[in-house]
Amino acid sequence: MDDFDLVIRGGTVVTAADTARADVGIRDGRIAAVGLDLPGGRRTIDADGLLVMPGGIDSHVHLAQPAFGGPAMADGFESGTRSAIAGGNTTVLPFALQARGTSLREAVAAYHHEADGQSYCDYGFHLIVTDPTPAVLGQELPALVEDGYSSLKVFMTYDDMVLNDRELLEVFDAAGDCGALVMVHCEGYDAIRFMTERLERAGKTAPYYHAVSRPEPVEREAAHRAITHSEITGVPIMIVHVSGREAMEQIRWARGRGLRILGETCAQYVSLTADDLKGLNMDETGGKYVCSPPPRDRESWEAIWNGIATGVFQTFSSDHCPFFFEGPLGKMNPKARTSFRWVPNGIPGVEVRMPILFSEGVVKARISLQEFVALTSTNHARIYGLGGRKGSIAPGHDADIVLWDPERRVTISQEIMHHGADYTPWEGFEVTGWPQATILRGEVVMREGEILGARGSGGFLRRDRSPMAGRARGAFA
Amino acid sequence: MDDFDLVIRGGTVVTAADTARADVGIRDGRIAAVGLDLPGGRRTIDADGLLVMPGGIDSHVHLAQPAFGGPAMADGFESGTRSAIAGGNTTVLPFALQARGTSLREAVAAYHHEADGQSYCDYGFHLIVTDPTPAVLGQELPALVEDGYSSLKVFMTYDDMVLNDRELLEVFDAAGDCGALVMVHCEGYDAIRFMTERLERAGKTAPYYHAVSRPEPVEREAAHRAITHSEITGVPIMIVHVSGREAMEQIRWARGRGLRILGETCAQYVSLTADDLKGLNMDETGGKYVCSPPPRDRESWEAIWNGIATGVFQTFSSDHCPFFFEGPLGKMNPKARTSFRWVPNGIPGVEVRMPILFSEGVVKARISLQEFVALTSTNHARIYGLGGRKGSIAPGHDADIVLWDPERRVTISQEIMHHGADYTPWEGFEVTGWPQATILRGEVVMREGEILGARGSGGFLRRDRSPMAGRARGAFA
Amino acid sequence: MDDFDLVIRGGTVVTAADTARADVGIRDGRIAAVGLDLPGGRRTIDADGLLVMPGGIDSHVHLAQPAFGGPAMADGFESGTRSAIAGGNTTVLPFALQARGTSLREAVAAYHHEADGQSYCDYGFHLIVTDPTPAVLGQELPALVEDGYSSLKVFMTYDDMVLNDRELLEVFDAAGDCGALVMVHCEGYDAIRFMTERLERAGKTAPYYHAVSRPEPVEREAAHRAITHSEITGVPIMIVHVSGREAMEQIRWARGRGLRILGETCAQYVSLTADDLKGLNMDETGGKYVCSPPPRDRESWEAIWNGIATGVFQTFSSDHCPFFFEGPLGKMNPKARTSFRWVPNGIPGVEVRMPILFSEGVVKARISLQEFVALTSTNHARIYGLGGRKGSIAPGHDADIVLWDPERRVTISQEIMHHGADYTPWEGFEVTGWPQATILRGEVVMREGEILGARGSGGFLRRDRSPMAGRARGAFA
Amino acid sequence: MDDFDLVIRGGTVVTAADTARADVGIRDGRIAAVGLDLPGGRRTIDADGLLVMPGGIDSHVHLAQPAFGGPAMADGFESGTRSAIAGGNTTVLPFALQARGTSLREAVAAYHHEADGQSYCDYGFHLIVTDPTPAVLGQELPALVEDGYSSLKVFMTYDDMVLNDRELLEVFDAAGDCGALVMVHCEGYDAIRFMTERLERAGKTAPYYHAVSRPEPVEREAAHRAITHSEITGVPIMIVHVSGREAMEQIRWARGRGLRILGETCAQYVSLTADDLKGLNMDETGGKYVCSPPPRDRESWEAIWNGIATGVFQTFSSDHCPFFFEGPLGKMNPKARTSFRWVPNGIPGVEVRMPILFSEGVVKARISLQEFVALTSTNHARIYGLGGRKGSIAPGHDADIVLWDPERRVTISQEIMHHGADYTPWEGFEVTGWPQATILRGEVVMREGEILGARGSGGFLRRDRSPMAGRARGAFA
Repeated sequence: MDDFDLVIRGGTVVTAADTARADVGIRDGRIAAVGLDLPGGRRTIDADGLLVMPGGIDSHVHLAQPAFGGPAMADGFESGTRSAIAGGNTTVLPFALQARGTSLREAVAAYHHEADGQSYCDYGFHLIVTDPTPAVLGQELPALVEDGYSSLKVFMTYDDMVLNDRELLEVFDAAGDCGALVMVHCEGYDAIRFMTERLERAGKTAPYYHAVSRPEPVEREAAHRAITHSEITGVPIMIVHVSGREAMEQIRWARGRGLRILGETCAQYVSLTADDLKGLNMDETGGKYVCSPPPRDRESWEAIWNGIATGVFQTFSSDHCPFFFEGPLGKMNPKARTSFRWVPNGIPGVEVRMPILFSEGVVKARISLQEFVALTSTNHARIYGLGGRKGSIAPGHDADIVLWDPERRVTISQEIMHHGADYTPWEGFEVTGWPQATILRGEVVMREGEILGARGSGGFLRRDRSPMAGRARGAFA
Repeated sequence: MDDFDLVIRGGTVVTAADTARADVGIRDGRIAAVGLDLPGGRRTIDADGLLVMPGGIDSHVHLAQPAFGGPAMADGFESGTRSAIAGGNTTVLPFALQARGTSLREAVAAYHHEADGQSYCDYGFHLIVTDPTPAVLGQELPALVEDGYSSLKVFMTYDDMVLNDRELLEVFDAAGDCGALVMVHCEGYDAIRFMTERLERAGKTAPYYHAVSRPEPVEREAAHRAITHSEITGVPIMIVHVSGREAMEQIRWARGRGLRILGETCAQYVSLTADDLKGLNMDETGGKYVCSPPPRDRESWEAIWNGIATGVFQTFSSDHCPFFFEGPLGKMNPKARTSFRWVPNGIPGVEVRMPILFSEGVVKARISLQEFVALTSTNHARIYGLGGRKGSIAPGHDADIVLWDPERRVTISQEIMHHGADYTPWEGFEVTGWPQATILRGEVVMREGEILGARGSGGFLRRDRSPMAGRARGAFA
Repeated sequence: MDDFDLVIRGGTVVTAADTARADVGIRDGRIAAVGLDLPGGRRTIDADGLLVMPGGIDSHVHLAQPAFGGPAMADGFESGTRSAIAGGNTTVLPFALQARGTSLREAVAAYHHEADGQSYCDYGFHLIVTDPTPAVLGQELPALVEDGYSSLKVFMTYDDMVLNDRELLEVFDAAGDCGALVMVHCEGYDAIRFMTERLERAGKTAPYYHAVSRPEPVEREAAHRAITHSEITGVPIMIVHVSGREAMEQIRWARGRGLRILGETCAQYVSLTADDLKGLNMDETGGKYVCSPPPRDRESWEAIWNGIATGVFQTFSSDHCPFFFEGPLGKMNPKARTSFRWVPNGIPGVEVRMPILFSEGVVKARISLQEFVALTSTNHARIYGLGGRKGSIAPGHDADIVLWDPERRVTISQEIMHHGADYTPWEGFEVTGWPQATILRGEVVMREGEILGARGSGGFLRRDRSPMAGRARGAFA
Repeated sequence: MDDFDLVIRGGTVVTAADTARADVGIRDGRIAAVGLDLPGGRRTIDADGLLVMPGGIDSHVHLAQPAFGGPAMADGFESGTRSAIAGGNTTVLPFALQARGTSLREAVAAYHHEADGQSYCDYGFHLIVTDPTPAVLGQELPALVEDGYSSLKVFMTYDDMVLNDRELLEVFDAAGDCGALVMVHCEGYDAIRFMTERLERAGKTAPYYHAVSRPEPVEREAAHRAITHSEITGVPIMIVHVSGREAMEQIRWARGRGLRILGETCAQYVSLTADDLKGLNMDETGGKYVCSPPPRDRESWEAIWNGIATGVFQTFSSDHCPFFFEGPLGKMNPKARTSFRWVPNGIPGVEVRMPILFSEGVVKARISLQEFVALTSTNHARIYGLGGRKGSIAPGHDADIVLWDPERRVTISQEIMHHGADYTPWEGFEVTGWPQATILRGEVVMREGEILGARGSGGFLRRDRSPMAGRARGAFA
């Protein structure tokens, strides 16, 4: 009992259930005990004045994806996970994107290749299904779920990834058969194309018109459609990166009817607005904020907080999807300068997700510490099949911990970021609360912004089936 | 003033506004006066004990359409309009269906060819757009609206007619430009296909499974999608043949948000149920009730009545779409026997629409006489550009009148029908209230079930633009 | 047929059903014919360019009431009905207010005494029940309904009139038994008192705080409560003078559940705001706008228009309740100067109700002419038991007609008002559309603002039971 | 570290955050450590195969109250808390009921007198305010909150306790000032009286009519009213013992608008129905189920489960309120035999609350183990000011633990109950999962149904202010 490898001493341990002044004893990379006055281990960390919380799990992160027909993503696994641990995270769940005409296995292999030996934190893969052939759905998917890839994502927009309704239904149905959890990007492809072309014809090509081209009803309609597909097949879904009231209320409506719909929101939807896309006088710096769905307005922030307070959202993620701003492969590459439609969609956020939620949520008394932990870690673990291993500070769980200074005031700037991108959309944004250190399976991998972990120390996570997945009774199909 | 061609004497005149014991004087095919003790005209009709109401306008009637890749429709203009006047109608609005690869003009010409000299009542045409090319939308449609074809219909299902979302948006947008009113058949094509295939694979091919293959959420989702397209383009739409609570509540929701969404329901949705599709022990007689959306259940009837009472629905139509039941071209033709998916969708109803609404609505005290007139005639006229000419009993309006016996009890049966089909889905259904005579522009064309009008006496109606059509302010596009 | 007393020639006749260019023949005070080129009567009126519409029925008018413990109401029957006909009305329905401790019969007698020989237009009485003893409810009320007083009003606020929930339930129940229609003033007494005292303690006594003391939730809560009482007893109610979205949505919700709830709104709720109560820099002129519920804001106007468009509201009234502004008995009498709570609640509006709805509704394309007529006349007649006699232009109906100049632009001002009050809250308000003449039972009683009718020419109306009244099936009690 | 007084070894520790196979070390009545392979303490308990969960906190329990003008409550603190620990609870929060005309301090003193030395588990008191004088609200209440009585309850029904709206507003307001959390019993007094009298007049006096006299709309209306009072004063409330969909949806609606409304439901609302009140053929045994609100029907159970799944309800309580069934002071005492209105309202449930939720919720896969713990313990602690001390298994927290056998099948019967009542409403009800042992501050007070704790070992809990209490910004008052 006294042979701890590491004891975190004197901090305030916060879980999704409680807050306790206690020590945390770690052995063999796992939490061995949480207790009062634990006997000293081989090493100790003084956590006096700090919150000792489960390391962040960011279940919505894009790394090393080829994207938008050209521009390279600014983060591979090395820089992306470096940024993640700098932000207090110990696990990320990026995507293995199937290219059309290829198999899911090929995708998984390719992303493993990208990740092997590169990652600073643990990781699993969601599958992105873009080519749902019978073989993919009937053979590959069940086998991959069995192998620990227990969730998949589908897109209702984007040229390279969009599935039509028939395909969505087939994917949902197959996921119901094998217990995969389905994540859905809800925006209506045709409506966006329709509006994009009209805007372009009107010469409205500046980055700001990205937001105009996909207003809230476009997201709401897709959410309603996905919910209906879920209802018909009896297969639960997670609607990701919800941006405002309209889609949020569809989820609430569905849940009130007994449908099993989960919801995710992201930092940008409580801290950025569409006006940010205007840049300086409609200039190209607005491109720094181009992501989908676009951030809305301050009223939407309130809607999102309400969705958080009422349990519409279970997870708070980053949708980290970083691109360079400058340079020929950057957001405003030559083609992107011709129209917002060619600006790569996505922003870097894995490093600031937890500080933003802590500062805007906990410090401003919108959520409790327990809700913070649930939204940033515990719920991600439970929903994505890592329950019992990740997401809490309890014996037997991996010793994935963030030591959090609740009073540290930081002005976010590119200078202090660890990601690969050449900018942060939150430049100048002030937060209270910042990760002091990140501990991955008992090893301090970040302290005071300094990366201490070894590249490759993060490992691949075979995930269990989600307890939320599986087919409901009473479905139509 | 005393030179009336015809005076209808002693009846109770009912309009959407009021009920008055009065005579109706007719001259030159128009209503010349409504008054007390009008001086006698050349002819008189004793309407003592009868309701004198505007002739029915059935704005949703399919005649002479090629349908479902083979089976002939049971009614052309001759038998279809004969059935219409037998049921108290004086105007029908059938469809001119564009075949893909052809022009709207061709469609219009073809249907005029079918109708010329055949019709017993007046008629106009809605356009069915199945091939929305730029030429069709940019040139043909505006010209046709100008020529009196001021409404169009689009389908969200059916192999031969379905439009995808992009096409729907383009049609809505074009309709907004030229002031056409858009009618939408809301059922999700992909979801129906998905379920149909599963049902077939499970050997569930009897007619009843038609209803199973398109449950309410399929209609609701399509309604939500169409509403969103309407919202995005700022173009009002009429959602036709709403079958139950789910789609109805989408319309209510949309209207409550200020969107301009109109709604139609039909006789079958307050008088038939999906169980009727079971026939006798799942036999093929269930095929007699195959229509889309399918009738639901008795709870849905209440939902529809509620929608009527609260103004969600403005029109009550038949969606008359008749097929033979027997014979090689009938509903249960050889191919149809292999699966419900090949059973032609549609039932004959133009003749019983008004009796069913009167009996179930007025007699059972669910609606007032004024609402009856509005739902069967006045609102159709106003919405579809016939205001001031049709749909009311007022000076200057066409003398289109039904003399209604409010106490006559009739058991509906094929024997007394005038349509071309070889059955009626309401066989044995008892109603109170029945048309005693139908008067078209001053001529008695039906009396006591006997057709007195001449084939071809019905004329084509060039319709004005709908006052409900046109683009709203504040739309996104 | 040619012996008309009066023919209105060449106008455009508008009813709730239709619009027709036609003449109107009047005989013995009733409409004898509506027709094309009617033969000339003894007198004719040239209505070329005018709308010929049913005379307004204002079903919510307070005349000659003692009010608020002192201040005399500015209108008795003489000036109040003079103002009514000047505004295009031919019928008003004021109230016979039971003083506590007295009988309904006494109240009725007293108000008849006030009205006899004084009125310029026809009138009936709603009963105001303030003392619902068993004798009042069990004996007086049924007898009075039988005698033509077929509606009653109850208050959920005001010291002198408020009923508690038990009393409301007893009144609703008794009304269900005898077929009286129940009107309810929905504002929560206790909440208003609670806030009033707090405001006064804080020295917030200016007229504006009247609005602060009764925010929308206070109205909404009372509406919900009244709806529940209606649901429990199975007795329909009319919720009067709805001011904004919150109460409106309660009615919509109730109707969507199949409850029989009617709704009324008033001119002030689409044309005034709470800011008007601020007067000039919180001065006492704000008192001119003190009425209950108070007007809200411009967003509420949109909510009210939406309620009109979606059938939540059947009637549009004035809630005419006039007080002098100046003088010892005026709105700002000495006591009223000490706090808003002593400012008499009510504003004069019977004369401008129709112009405001026409200008803001018809001219601004928010409603159709048919809806205008329904909202200002036809629905009032039908709901309050005057159907077949009043509210439409149809043979046999009283020849109550307003000739309306749809293009006349008028700036409302006290100078042109005919009421007894010494101000109008709409001073300076510009409208398009104004009554050119008012015809009561065939007699021109107002032309171009000049009163031509004789005092006392208006008669008492015994009203039938409302077709909306009576007990529903399935109630709990 | 190895000087534990007690180690619970080998069990599965469940908190609201996680599930972990771990030992629990206890020292000085508190949890000292949760860890793997803790060194043995002075005593050990083998929890192999058992769930080790926070002891139940039942925040809604009535003990030793005089009730309904006569009949003695069947449980004082001795038998009530004995029953509580037998059911796996370690804390109860009964009420200190103010008798009108007396002070809150007197009530508190009286209940302390009842409880002193009698209790088998820890306890705090909610105040019941029945006489909200200025002195009570302005002086007593703040002082009592300071002294650890940080919550109060008000009633919207019951002769002896009902507050009118003005009083409710004053209480809410005062609670906002001093940070007391307000619990509200939502049923409309007047509506219940109204219906009760009608039922009695109709001779419908059997216990079943208790349910008829207070249908769901009565509860819904009161909930809406209380929510409005909360909105006006800006003071959050807890709506207790919600019985079905109607009131539940009011809470959801309010929360969706950003109002701070909490919700509680109880075991009877997912396991009993109004039909139980019929007894055997409307006999008096139905009286065993008389409680308020009454249980509804099976559809309501689904509504309640939906409310639980969507976060509408934070706590699951018993509303334990036991009366004898037999005998002159029993439920069916002589007076009670004359009408349901005299049957004391309330049923014993503290002992079966946790088994029913476990069996119906966890075993039937409606809720997770985490939700079970949150609903039965953690949320009660947090909401009622015991956070950090009670409600979780974490270092520093009181060692209040239930050892739960998840597979034990038990048929509930009076024979095995420990309460004072002479019956249980769940006689014959089968559950899976049962408390094997209850540990209060480190002492085993119940094992296998045997009471091991000493009477009086339970202590009084001074509670902190609820983190949910206090006044919101933006309130009207």
